Amino acid sequence: MKVPRIVLDAMGGDNAPGEPVAGALMAAGVLGVELILVGRQDAIESELRGTATIRDVRIVDTPDVIGMDEHATDAVRAKRKSSIVVGLEMLKRGEADAFVTAGNTGATMAAALLTLGRVKGIGRPALATIFPAAEGRLTMLLDVGANADCRPIHLYQFAHMGAAYMERMFGVNRPRVALLSIGEEETKGNQLTLEVHQMLRGSRLNFVGNVEGKDLPRGLADVVVMDGFTGNVVLKTAEGIAELLFGELRKAVELTPWNKAAGLILMSELRKVKRQLDYAEYGGAQLVGVDGIVVIGHGRSNARAIFNALKAARDAVQNGVLEKVRAVGKEVPAREKGAGEGAAGDIGEE
Amino acid sequence: MKVPRIVLDAMGGDNAPGEPVAGALMAAGVLGVELILVGRQDAIESELRGTATIRDVRIVDTPDVIGMDEHATDAVRAKRKSSIVVGLEMLKRGEADAFVTAGNTGATMAAALLTLGRVKGIGRPALATIFPAAEGRLTMLLDVGANADCRPIHLYQFAHMGAAYMERMFGVNRPRVALLSIGEEETKGNQLTLEVHQMLRGSRLNFVGNVEGKDLPRGLADVVVMDGFTGNVVLKTAEGIAELLFGELRKAVELTPWNKAAGLILMSELRKVKRQLDYAEYGGAQLVGVDGIVVIGHGRSNARAIFNALKAARDAVQNGVLEKVRAVGKEVPAREKGAGEGAAGDIGEE
Repeated sequence: MKVPRIVLDAMGGDNAPGEPVAGALMAAGVLGVELILVGRQDAIESELRGTATIRDVRIVDTPDVIGMDEHATDAVRAKRKSSIVVGLEMLKRGEADAFVTAGNTGATMAAALLTLGRVKGIGRPALATIFPAAEGRLTMLLDVGANADCRPIHLYQFAHMGAAYMERMFGVNRPRVALLSIGEEETKGNQLTLEVHQMLRGSRLNFVGNVEGKDLPRGLADVVVMDGFTGNVVLKTAEGIAELLFGELRKAVELTPWNKAAGLILMSELRKVKRQLDYAEYGGAQLVGVDGIVVIGHGRSNARAIFNALKAARDAVQNGVLEKVRAVGKEVPAREKGAGEGAAGDIGEE
Repeated sequence: MKVPRIVLDAMGGDNAPGEPVAGALMAAGVLGVELILVGRQDAIESELRGTATIRDVRIVDTPDVIGMDEHATDAVRAKRKSSIVVGLEMLKRGEADAFVTAGNTGATMAAALLTLGRVKGIGRPALATIFPAAEGRLTMLLDVGANADCRPIHLYQFAHMGAAYMERMFGVNRPRVALLSIGEEETKGNQLTLEVHQMLRGSRLNFVGNVEGKDLPRGLADVVVMDGFTGNVVLKTAEGIAELLFGELRKAVELTPWNKAAGLILMSELRKVKRQLDYAEYGGAQLVGVDGIVVIGHGRSNARAIFNALKAARDAVQNGVLEKVRAVGKEVPAREKGAGEGAAGDIGEE
């Protein structure tokens, strides 16, 4: 098998270039990939100084950096020599197989659409992430933030793409696909989910119906689809609740010497629980539906998170996920049944 | 001050009539209210048997019971002699000041609209609940499930009603009002929130801007508005994550005798944390914008949850919350600026 070539944005994220470079060093020689770091050569080399293993790691010097808070499309237009744009262009030219960044999510999505374009037949790319569930089960959620407003056909396509990912990446046979709504009954939901429910029922997918927010950590489905606004709210709420709980636990452990001792005993177990909920374990989000493998890590990514994102990118390449998504693009309709030309017109919009 | 008269649905919830009746007994003589239990007299009396204190508690016999899973409007139409319909009719006739149930939420909302109607000027009533935040702070979230699809004017009205509640119920001066979205910047959001953001900026409220899901447990605002689909997803996701975490902790504590001992030491602190997140502590959800005080508890309500719901109802009555919401109805516009007749037409829908 060909060695996957992965471009890593060394300038992406709150802790760049330190953590991305450290993550690359963790990965070099372990993941069996060829790594290309894009970013400011001097900054990268200063991070690499003193480290022995830079075999397998190539550097492409890019002068521009897109900041975490910059306006996505403006930044992409203005900074053609940024690590994000240059890295994605390498993918487009076939000089690499995947792009990984912990940088500006909006800018990465905009640049990916501009350079790679969408998979033929797919109306809207989606951000897909793995959500931790009880007993080590994994559920893919999409869209978690690429499209704040969605039409039914978009969620219908997300469902097919998500199933393709779970099949190829994790070898799940006939992935159980669910729709996030506000009740299990098909009559519960908003206009969007009511319509999507009917479409998914008529599809070839293994559609298991609606799930509610409380079901997400229960692993009742392998893929759960939702609009990007709702998906973002779900992820951030989960993050907030976990932070609140661990914060309160930390305070409780500090209260008395007895508590402190008890906390020490339970510490390793607590860490496991925390880790189970930790974004860093799951290799970030994949931008599904653009014509290339693009992995976007959390802005706060540390070296381990970068390592896992690189691993996820490698797995996506090696398992032929993109080819499968291209097959989905050929198979699924591009618009709702009975939708007029007006409705069809906005397929093709960003 | 007049003693508040509260109607409690003895047949409402998964644990009825046992827990509602137990909650009523907890409240009798303590809350300083007059309690009226509606439900099947024989079932209620069999629960009351053997208890001494039934002073202050009156029973109104209603033969029909609306089940937790019945279709809301169908059930309300068919069961005119149900505890929910009869209880709300007592409110309408001025025979009571508040109605409390842990029963079918949809049926309660439908019956409340039918019997009490909306506060004049309010397009859509909303379900409002108190969300626990760090350091004992409280945030009111609305809508958490009454309206799956909302227009901007609805969220604008929710914001004003929520502020009125926090002012009157908790004495919060100039409550900080926020909008749930997917980024702090005013340019982040879906079509709905983008529009609502501009409307709230132009309002007389103390609008502090957008908050994200992760901010909800941080107590950054006193009131956070959202559409009812999103609100339901937020609450249920929070519930699911808390269950996952406590489930994993429980498993960790069972692993070894050392862990068990450590768990015992930390137990009381863990309980406090759990309680902080427990729906039962916060008196359920209030149906804001109908012309009466209606409190809807979680279907799983135990006696303590019922007690707290009765307390919340009493506080709402004593603090004149309904009068304040009526004043809001007179003050806020009923439609978006520049909305044509077509858009205005659906104010008045359920």
